[in-house]
Amino acid sequence: MSLIVTGSVGIDTVETPDGQRADDVLGGSSIYFAAGASFFTKVRLVAAVGEDFPEHFQEQFQQFDVCTDGLEQREGSKTFRWHGRYHENMNDRDTLAVELNVLGEALPPVPDHYRDSKYVFLANTHPAGQMALLDQFPEAKLVVADTMDLWIETEKDLLTELLGKIDGFVLNDAEAKQLTGESNVVRAADKVLAMGPTFVIVKKGEHGAILRHKDGTGVLPAFPAHEVVDPTGAGDSFASGMMGYLTAADDISVASIKRAMAYGTVVASYTIEKFSTHRLSEIDREQIDARLETFGSHLDIGAGI
Amino acid sequence: MSLIVTGSVGIDTVETPDGQRADDVLGGSSIYFAAGASFFTKVRLVAAVGEDFPEHFQEQFQQFDVCTDGLEQREGSKTFRWHGRYHENMNDRDTLAVELNVLGEALPPVPDHYRDSKYVFLANTHPAGQMALLDQFPEAKLVVADTMDLWIETEKDLLTELLGKIDGFVLNDAEAKQLTGESNVVRAADKVLAMGPTFVIVKKGEHGAILRHKDGTGVLPAFPAHEVVDPTGAGDSFASGMMGYLTAADDISVASIKRAMAYGTVVASYTIEKFSTHRLSEIDREQIDARLETFGSHLDIGAGI
Repeated sequence: MSLIVTGSVGIDTVETPDGQRADDVLGGSSIYFAAGASFFTKVRLVAAVGEDFPEHFQEQFQQFDVCTDGLEQREGSKTFRWHGRYHENMNDRDTLAVELNVLGEALPPVPDHYRDSKYVFLANTHPAGQMALLDQFPEAKLVVADTMDLWIETEKDLLTELLGKIDGFVLNDAEAKQLTGESNVVRAADKVLAMGPTFVIVKKGEHGAILRHKDGTGVLPAFPAHEVVDPTGAGDSFASGMMGYLTAADDISVASIKRAMAYGTVVASYTIEKFSTHRLSEIDREQIDARLETFGSHLDIGAGI
Repeated sequence: MSLIVTGSVGIDTVETPDGQRADDVLGGSSIYFAAGASFFTKVRLVAAVGEDFPEHFQEQFQQFDVCTDGLEQREGSKTFRWHGRYHENMNDRDTLAVELNVLGEALPPVPDHYRDSKYVFLANTHPAGQMALLDQFPEAKLVVADTMDLWIETEKDLLTELLGKIDGFVLNDAEAKQLTGESNVVRAADKVLAMGPTFVIVKKGEHGAILRHKDGTGVLPAFPAHEVVDPTGAGDSFASGMMGYLTAADDISVASIKRAMAYGTVVASYTIEKFSTHRLSEIDREQIDARLETFGSHLDIGAGI
């Protein structure tokens, strides 16, 4: 099975409350997603970077099993940049600087040999870009999109239109509240569900995620982390494990989505242990499966009297 | 098996952000606990109220299978009162007024026929009162205590001493941080564990609970609630389902504690659907078991490729 992702590639600068920082590291939604999903299946990437994109990022990314035929390095453009600082709670963050650069331009063309993709993930980017891609995968079996507060604020109509055309939608709890006006996360998810998709996953960071599907419900805590170095990319990593598993299993039942969410939880738990994709560079599928087993034992409420 | 609880009985006034309020309703840690645990086992209550304790509260409470031989109505004293208002997030709350009254006086005597109790829950009250009870149950198999921010602030030494003498400790995430200085909940739990108990459960309200036990870990989300009317008593209800199950099962293994936490989650999910113990008055063990099964299906990450 084939998984395609489109989203941002960025040069990130991240500051964490304990005084650590990482300057100009590889980031962006599609990078975290493609790296994480590559443990499960071959991933096809569609994204654009500028002529300033450092060569060593290419090397850092090459080790993941990702087809980069759809990654365009655009002359005369600059790469998307983000500089953020996390609060003490390691959940909230301030964006200190952001330069959209190439993200504000047209999407690169989808390579012809990507058009038979069955699983499509529209990582967080401008919803116009997400919409433009929808029609390009006529054989798509599952299309899932992510978003962010900025687009809910500025492009709500377009996002609402998108919701009518996709199968699954992932967003975080603050975004779910922003989009629906509901502070209760279950009611918020149900309101999003009523807008069109077959399922909605609300990500709650260190508190896990909730699935509301037309055919059922799933609720998972996060993997208990002793140390969070950098939460950047955790949401995309969650989506990566989820979509990677679904693609490899080629099963989009509720039961499969719940197992997929557990894989997403595990991939995210690795991502946050180091800056950028550095921790993902060190692990393999065996380690992911071992942690999934541990996670399953944490959740095991067994049977009793 | 026999379960004993000691803690507060209160007259509560609760305001919620949607403008609802309940004036002078039955509350207090040991009330929520005894009501919830009574679905699993016979519960013995040790607590004091004042001469102002309304007769209809006695009636409201009588339907639960609780032995109230240890409930003393003290002449010349007044019942503990609490008046709180919840924030929009239904998690944080302000205490608008509190009158310790009889809670500031000596504990009532433990009835002789309670002394063979095997399972002991020291619901939240002054740690001196909790300590005083410890020696009165020579056959105790499991002693678990709860606490609150006030005692961490004012009685930290006594609380630390208590931690060296009990088997299990439950507290919420803010309290765990306050007690240990650790903002990471897993590290905070481990620091509490190092202070003596065999296990620590950190309650995270709508985000579930984490168990750190010398022999293992458990992580559970909360039951996904469409509507929270009043979170008061949720923590005590969680403890009630947990201790009630453990007492009935007479099994304090890690696996049993994890299942017990799931029962606690379910009992708490009912408590918050109405003010006071009103929702608990309407349900039975069958409904609790049915919701536990639903909860188990939410958590089921199955097996796959």
